Amino acid sequence: MENNMSIAGLEEIKNIVGAEFMVTDPQQLALMSKDIIPYTQQASAFVWPKSVEEIQAILKVANQQKLAIWTCSRGKNWGYGGASPSQAGEVVLILDRMNQVLEVNEELAYAVVEPGVSFRQLHEYIKSRNIPLWLDCTDGPADASVIGNSVERGIGETNYGDHFGNVCGLEVILPTGELVRTGGGPMKNYASWNTYKWGVGPYLEGLFTQSNFGIVTKMGVWLMPQPECCETVFFEAKSEDVFPAVIDEIRKLQLSGTLISKIHMINKTVQLSILGPEAEKLSRRFDISPWVFAAGIYGSASQVRANKEHISKALSGYGKFVFINQPQVRFLEKILSWGGYYKSQKKPKLWLRSILELVAGKPMQLIEMIPNIASIERGEPSDYFVKHAYRKSPVTRPPDHDIDPARDNCGMVWLGPMVPLVGKQVQDFLNSCWKIFDQHNTERYVALMVANPRTVIALFAVYFTKSNPQEVENAQKLYIALGEHTQKMGYQQYRTSTAYMDKVLDPAPEFRALSKKIKQALDPNNVLSPGKYGV
Amino acid sequence: MENNMSIAGLEEIKNIVGAEFMVTDPQQLALMSKDIIPYTQQASAFVWPKSVEEIQAILKVANQQKLAIWTCSRGKNWGYGGASPSQAGEVVLILDRMNQVLEVNEELAYAVVEPGVSFRQLHEYIKSRNIPLWLDCTDGPADASVIGNSVERGIGETNYGDHFGNVCGLEVILPTGELVRTGGGPMKNYASWNTYKWGVGPYLEGLFTQSNFGIVTKMGVWLMPQPECCETVFFEAKSEDVFPAVIDEIRKLQLSGTLISKIHMINKTVQLSILGPEAEKLSRRFDISPWVFAAGIYGSASQVRANKEHISKALSGYGKFVFINQPQVRFLEKILSWGGYYKSQKKPKLWLRSILELVAGKPMQLIEMIPNIASIERGEPSDYFVKHAYRKSPVTRPPDHDIDPARDNCGMVWLGPMVPLVGKQVQDFLNSCWKIFDQHNTERYVALMVANPRTVIALFAVYFTKSNPQEVENAQKLYIALGEHTQKMGYQQYRTSTAYMDKVLDPAPEFRALSKKIKQALDPNNVLSPGKYGV
Repeated sequence: MENNMSIAGLEEIKNIVGAEFMVTDPQQLALMSKDIIPYTQQASAFVWPKSVEEIQAILKVANQQKLAIWTCSRGKNWGYGGASPSQAGEVVLILDRMNQVLEVNEELAYAVVEPGVSFRQLHEYIKSRNIPLWLDCTDGPADASVIGNSVERGIGETNYGDHFGNVCGLEVILPTGELVRTGGGPMKNYASWNTYKWGVGPYLEGLFTQSNFGIVTKMGVWLMPQPECCETVFFEAKSEDVFPAVIDEIRKLQLSGTLISKIHMINKTVQLSILGPEAEKLSRRFDISPWVFAAGIYGSASQVRANKEHISKALSGYGKFVFINQPQVRFLEKILSWGGYYKSQKKPKLWLRSILELVAGKPMQLIEMIPNIASIERGEPSDYFVKHAYRKSPVTRPPDHDIDPARDNCGMVWLGPMVPLVGKQVQDFLNSCWKIFDQHNTERYVALMVANPRTVIALFAVYFTKSNPQEVENAQKLYIALGEHTQKMGYQQYRTSTAYMDKVLDPAPEFRALSKKIKQALDPNNVLSPGKYGV
Repeated sequence: MENNMSIAGLEEIKNIVGAEFMVTDPQQLALMSKDIIPYTQQASAFVWPKSVEEIQAILKVANQQKLAIWTCSRGKNWGYGGASPSQAGEVVLILDRMNQVLEVNEELAYAVVEPGVSFRQLHEYIKSRNIPLWLDCTDGPADASVIGNSVERGIGETNYGDHFGNVCGLEVILPTGELVRTGGGPMKNYASWNTYKWGVGPYLEGLFTQSNFGIVTKMGVWLMPQPECCETVFFEAKSEDVFPAVIDEIRKLQLSGTLISKIHMINKTVQLSILGPEAEKLSRRFDISPWVFAAGIYGSASQVRANKEHISKALSGYGKFVFINQPQVRFLEKILSWGGYYKSQKKPKLWLRSILELVAGKPMQLIEMIPNIASIERGEPSDYFVKHAYRKSPVTRPPDHDIDPARDNCGMVWLGPMVPLVGKQVQDFLNSCWKIFDQHNTERYVALMVANPRTVIALFAVYFTKSNPQEVENAQKLYIALGEHTQKMGYQQYRTSTAYMDKVLDPAPEFRALSKKIKQALDPNNVLSPGKYGV
């Protein structure tokens, strides 16, 4: 890697973008190729093109020189590979200089963005113009790309949480350089490009998600009109026994349209991890439920009232729950930040903590979660939940600004199999997975994300200390074993990390063969992200 | 066409399926190749394979002999081409012998069906087993294929009316014969195949809709859990002036989740056509509104109450509206059929008609529509609305059973451009189209189908008398002129007929080139439905 410029084509690429927008220094490459997952592959260069034309010029060079290109929108895909390529030596394009919000249509409730636009940026754009629309963000990094997350088919929080489902209209550069728009209409002034997802003719938008068939340069995304009311339901199960029944109730609430936001449910281990160093002490003082969940409820006052009535009926008997509305959230935020908690730089007032903990019957860390959850449920991105990636980091206190778990040597990897939303099946599935966790002596960490009324993502996190080679190796072994175990049982991951991409289509040779045929047709020189998602 | 068997490969195909499952008689071919659209192309044979294996064997022959194959699930795509191919001489496969309902999962609310399964069959399957699920049907033929309509991306009635949006999991035979399933998982026991639409890896399901990339042989389709309540709102605009405002209110109701069923709105011409031969007389006696719509409202009692409250607030001031619940519908059905109307074979009691028309202030034909609309809004397919295709048919009274407008020489063609759901834009769009209708001296017939909260399909119908060559020619001219006019303005059709497929991608050469690359990769001999959707 010492003499990267000897790789054919790099010099030409430097001439295209300018030397200041390219990194080939081995030390910098090593740093930037790092993610928090156990192992990543090192890039041969990082390049920041500024336009469609520059990307097309780079692809021309790549095709001439048979150079492998890997693309990231902003490179914040932490826990799935970050900005690192799936194969060593690829040239990584980062598209964060292409960061225009091209349109926000208030009437039709959509935006058109470039790949460099982050959740934070789009949120601030909308808010600063007083446009009554909400975007759906994730509980991941606020500086992540809206396009990046959508084409990886990430899942958010609100009724618009199926991010790819709310994509409408892509502009794509094919590996051979042609610019094309999905939807079967003209490149300019196509009236329904951003309003009707399927367009006319073969529906091709999906080709450019979790794939290496093209580089997305523009995307339409549907936004949620600001609802009259927004409340959050917080639920805690009274025991492990009620778990299957609660899952079944959630399915019914989702299927009936009563609760269609992306419910996030976490187990005891996740809660303890939120409590941080005090976990053990606090878990003796407070009741920590085996399962808790939060979910947003949106609508008019009377719709929200009707839905709350149903949710109450469905959950009663299985544990405690509370509905918190926006004024209550604001009040709590004020008290907390006045007292030195929640986004406050002041010294915490310990007497306030004692009183609140006594009243709520919950540790302060879980009380502080409430406004943070309510905030992402109204589309305000925050890095609060990314802090949990610092659990096994040498950095003792995660930074409040410029968070970067990869830079800070955190160790964590996600694995998210899709499980039909049936109580008994989810329980059996988890139990079979816990055996693998136990064999690897690793704590049983899972967040259940309800992806749609019929499917839940069991999002496992494996934490490890990056500086400890044994822990890294153990995490990697557990990660692979868990992936293979779940695949063997017929459960696929809803997305995967660069470290699993070569295996992810192993159970589907027919599907992989079809994908390869398309790949060969669109990318005869195999220059674009070879190996991505096993294709 | 007289000696079809001389076409290379037909003899071999006969040996595969058996002589009784193949038609090559020229007269029969002519009859079966006919649709109600102005012009269709004639097939060289109709073939009924019974299995995946037979289709694979036929494709093998087709690839060897470079024979063009056209596929239909059941061939009831009336108004878009029926069972006729888009190019003359293609061998048409009809898959209605593959008609198994393979699974209905009550808990997860989905079914898995073969291409021969019709809306009527699936509905009866579910009903006879008392499964509390509803399928979404269309207002088209009850004997149409569920798969056929979904892969053409048809639109239905209820909250599940986006038929392709509710598809989850396809099994497909590629043009070269390989069997593959979408979703990136194993062919057998893939847990989330029918619960999570996007799967893992590139999302390829959309490739097999409005295309010629494969033959769908199995499909998962999501069903709607039977709601506690189901009501219909009927609205009539007080004047043409309020039209843009009503459209804007509909958008807001859809975006807020208050009314998410597929609203169907019809203009005065459509209502007059429902009145039949008495139209002129009745339109003098009764007030016929310029625009009326109906839409289903689903949920628990309190949800429906909350939503009705909002709908009332939104529509008041723009016209009259009424909500009709299920008991009221049943009551009306009883009165009507007792009186010799609505599905009754008895002689109509004219005094009842007088009383009902007086009370309702509406002609009997529009009163009879109420139970018919309510029925499709609860997923009960019916041929009632297909009768309107008989408007310019030599058959004076459309048949109650075994309806077939193609056989009965009806003349009609659909053209459905997608328009952003903004009042002023829809109005301007329609006005520009009416000029073309006027130029062709044809009545202004349009049904507006709200396809999603941001898009309405302006579904124009052009009626003509098949036996009158001048009328046929005029209809064809209007049809093409209207298609070209709307495309020129940037409006694409949400689906198209075999008579427009060669033009539909004209405004999108980049998209067509991409589709062709995929086509060449998957179908090197171009045997499968060449020319379908312009690819």
